[in-house]
Amino acid sequence: MPSALDTFKERWARISILEQTMAILGWDMETYMPEGGVAARSEQMALLSELAHQWLISDETARLLEDAERESKGGDYFAVDVSMLRAARRTYDQRVKIPEQLVSRMARTTAKANSIWVDARARSDFGAFAPILAELIEMNREQADCLGFTEHRYDALLNLFEPDLKTSTVEQLFSEMKGELVPLVKEITGHEKSPDTGFLNQKFSTAAQEAFGLVVLKDMGYDFRRGRQDRSAHPFTTSFSPYDVRITTRYDEKDLLSALFSTVHEGGHALYDQGLPLDLVNTPLCQPISLGVHESQSRLWENIIGRSRSFWIHYLPILKQHFPGQLDGISLDQFYRAVNRSRPGLIRVESDELTYNLHIFIRFEIEKDLIGGSLSTGEIPSVWNEKYRNYLGITPPDDARGCLQDIHWAHGSFGYFPTYTIGNLLSAQLYNKALEDHPSIPSEIEQGNMRTLLGWLRDRVHRHGSRYTFAELVMEITGGEVQVGPFMKYLSDKFRELYP
Amino acid sequence: MPSALDTFKERWARISILEQTMAILGWDMETYMPEGGVAARSEQMALLSELAHQWLISDETARLLEDAERESKGGDYFAVDVSMLRAARRTYDQRVKIPEQLVSRMARTTAKANSIWVDARARSDFGAFAPILAELIEMNREQADCLGFTEHRYDALLNLFEPDLKTSTVEQLFSEMKGELVPLVKEITGHEKSPDTGFLNQKFSTAAQEAFGLVVLKDMGYDFRRGRQDRSAHPFTTSFSPYDVRITTRYDEKDLLSALFSTVHEGGHALYDQGLPLDLVNTPLCQPISLGVHESQSRLWENIIGRSRSFWIHYLPILKQHFPGQLDGISLDQFYRAVNRSRPGLIRVESDELTYNLHIFIRFEIEKDLIGGSLSTGEIPSVWNEKYRNYLGITPPDDARGCLQDIHWAHGSFGYFPTYTIGNLLSAQLYNKALEDHPSIPSEIEQGNMRTLLGWLRDRVHRHGSRYTFAELVMEITGGEVQVGPFMKYLSDKFRELYP
Repeated sequence: MPSALDTFKERWARISILEQTMAILGWDMETYMPEGGVAARSEQMALLSELAHQWLISDETARLLEDAERESKGGDYFAVDVSMLRAARRTYDQRVKIPEQLVSRMARTTAKANSIWVDARARSDFGAFAPILAELIEMNREQADCLGFTEHRYDALLNLFEPDLKTSTVEQLFSEMKGELVPLVKEITGHEKSPDTGFLNQKFSTAAQEAFGLVVLKDMGYDFRRGRQDRSAHPFTTSFSPYDVRITTRYDEKDLLSALFSTVHEGGHALYDQGLPLDLVNTPLCQPISLGVHESQSRLWENIIGRSRSFWIHYLPILKQHFPGQLDGISLDQFYRAVNRSRPGLIRVESDELTYNLHIFIRFEIEKDLIGGSLSTGEIPSVWNEKYRNYLGITPPDDARGCLQDIHWAHGSFGYFPTYTIGNLLSAQLYNKALEDHPSIPSEIEQGNMRTLLGWLRDRVHRHGSRYTFAELVMEITGGEVQVGPFMKYLSDKFRELYP
Repeated sequence: MPSALDTFKERWARISILEQTMAILGWDMETYMPEGGVAARSEQMALLSELAHQWLISDETARLLEDAERESKGGDYFAVDVSMLRAARRTYDQRVKIPEQLVSRMARTTAKANSIWVDARARSDFGAFAPILAELIEMNREQADCLGFTEHRYDALLNLFEPDLKTSTVEQLFSEMKGELVPLVKEITGHEKSPDTGFLNQKFSTAAQEAFGLVVLKDMGYDFRRGRQDRSAHPFTTSFSPYDVRITTRYDEKDLLSALFSTVHEGGHALYDQGLPLDLVNTPLCQPISLGVHESQSRLWENIIGRSRSFWIHYLPILKQHFPGQLDGISLDQFYRAVNRSRPGLIRVESDELTYNLHIFIRFEIEKDLIGGSLSTGEIPSVWNEKYRNYLGITPPDDARGCLQDIHWAHGSFGYFPTYTIGNLLSAQLYNKALEDHPSIPSEIEQGNMRTLLGWLRDRVHRHGSRYTFAELVMEITGGEVQVGPFMKYLSDKFRELYP
């Protein structure tokens, strides 16, 4: 007779496989689906979403979970089985609170919202997006009420992406960051010596950009037998299982750096997904811990590695080979300074490391008020623009470069943005620890060898799947909590050296 | 209260949407999926297939179908509702006979078989494919026994693709065809004046091939807002719904004609799928009648139109523009004769109109014996090669160009091939009727105007979905049965003019 755990795992695997098919449909929708397919795709995703939800919250699943929990009682807290059931319980308890009818309504609406957003952004027409956005906000408020919260309605949504994190904690961390970041940004923005980036004002063949990005991805250890790269309106990573983890990017021949760093960023996400435990595939443990942890991976690769001097010691010569005659006279120092030029900008995904988190603060504050109820959809553009003026000193000339720039709200995701900054904080803590364990990492990277770093991440983070929570992982690796200090020290050391 | 029919339609829509998602997964598998994704994809497809099957054959579906049938009793035979329930009943009665366990086993095995076949074909290694092929044949025999048959076990499989068609009818039609075709092929193969095709021995840019193919597809009326074209190992058309109908092709710079005619062929399929009744989407009527009818569409476009003199009057100048300097001196007559050159060849999908059906006779005879039990898997290559010697006078030098060339068996499809020839027969009957109604069609095509023809097909065939059976459609349009005569007259007129 199979154990209660095995029976439960079988049940869970079916849910997991169904969720994989949803991810495939989502990937297709954003890469290759013809426009006419939108309505039918909404129906398809709504049905699968409804079904996966039904299965997850069914009495059958509850019963099998309870049986398995009873069976594994008394086991070691971090044992695979015990951790697996804890992860499953967390998911179940969260999902059981959301009515099926709301789940399928949200899936149907977000599938529609996606193409409306693409269109509205192209025409910079917030008014065209506003009605469906208002619907999505309302559904999210409804969802938060179903999920329940003690302090702030926004907590409930935040926890969909970052379990256990409180709005008040985010406010506290962000406030501490602001205290250091705002003066630092001012200092650097006002600095007289701006790096020379004139050499970037050329056209760079998108085919060569793609080829160079693929070289870096391969060196990072991204496994193309278990993944691929395509193009989409907004770069993303999607994982159908660790066996098929795909990334997307977008190219602009007038911008050498944007696609490159987005590729390294998505590559960092993908390495995490490809590194999840293959022997636990289709179980509750074969999942990333949270978006914050996910973002710590992408940020570590994109910024701490991809924008480091060590990285470009190896890659600048290779980049030059990809663009013959275009970067000939550029020195390492010039290039390193150029890829790290800090200047307040309008677009989050193109912003520099230093100012990036200011973009997040803005989104967090707007979302919090939208969900809290003190801000209405129609007010978004003006509040957005005002905050950009206050935090970054610039005003978006239109909504395409303002509040329509991100895909998240069209996806129905509120509470997602703060995890970017949480990920930044964690990335510095993780890298410090990796360096402590392997002081040779920077000199290896100077030779294009990123295997020690990936090996460390695989061993300390990836292979555990969701055995630990965010807080447990941070405690396990650093012996403490997530902190503002290490990231701010990294930033200020780096940028004070760049802008002496 | 909703009518019994409405309740039934709601149930059917869910099944239909689930089948759409399977088609999306299948498309991805053959176009973009990385190799590492195979095993997980098998599981995904098996789960969806099992689920769709369960839903279809459930007591719930049976009860709702019976209720709706009772409600619509006495209605006109060809009324939408009555036809819809008849189509649903046909599908239900067929599918209820196949055990769920067999369905999911077949789905899992075919997903695996696909990549094994791709690999075996690349290495021309039948031995590598044989074990899983034997499994698939055994499962198909099992399936035939579940479905039941009166004359020949093969009937049961044939009817999965062409309902009501009997092996004995196929034998009779094919035998009548052979009586005329074999002497005709001999006459033409032995003809002293072989068309000059030397000008085709050049390299033709695949980008230009693609661009020209897209021009033709657009002119045919293929709607790119509801479809797209990609590349795959074997060209195919897949329909997720009439809102998203995709085709694939493959290019070879040494072969100008292969991708072009495969594009027109798949385009013909796609026009049928895009032309299905949008107001009946997700109902049992929003489906093609059968593979034979489907093939009549692709063959009509590919051969009767695409290989006609009228077609090339318009398109040869456009083709020349796509390949500057490469086809300058080629006359219409030269080109028309070249695209219709008949010569026995090894590859079915590259064979000419005249010899094509000989390839089908071979596959039909082998399948019939495999399923009947008088032939074993291991014997396929030798029997295959012997039949090619006997029917076409040539011997495949390896299995890649022999019995490994087609994807069908790897898909677990037996009984599919005969529908190609049935489609050829019907295509001639349909085109004769269209000409009778609109004698201007050839002169319109000379101007690249295919709208009257498409309009006629939409009106007489596409928009009815599966309201009629194959036999009812043929009766409705031609007043009789499917016949060998019209197609053979078309072939012999055309080829006796080409080879005077």
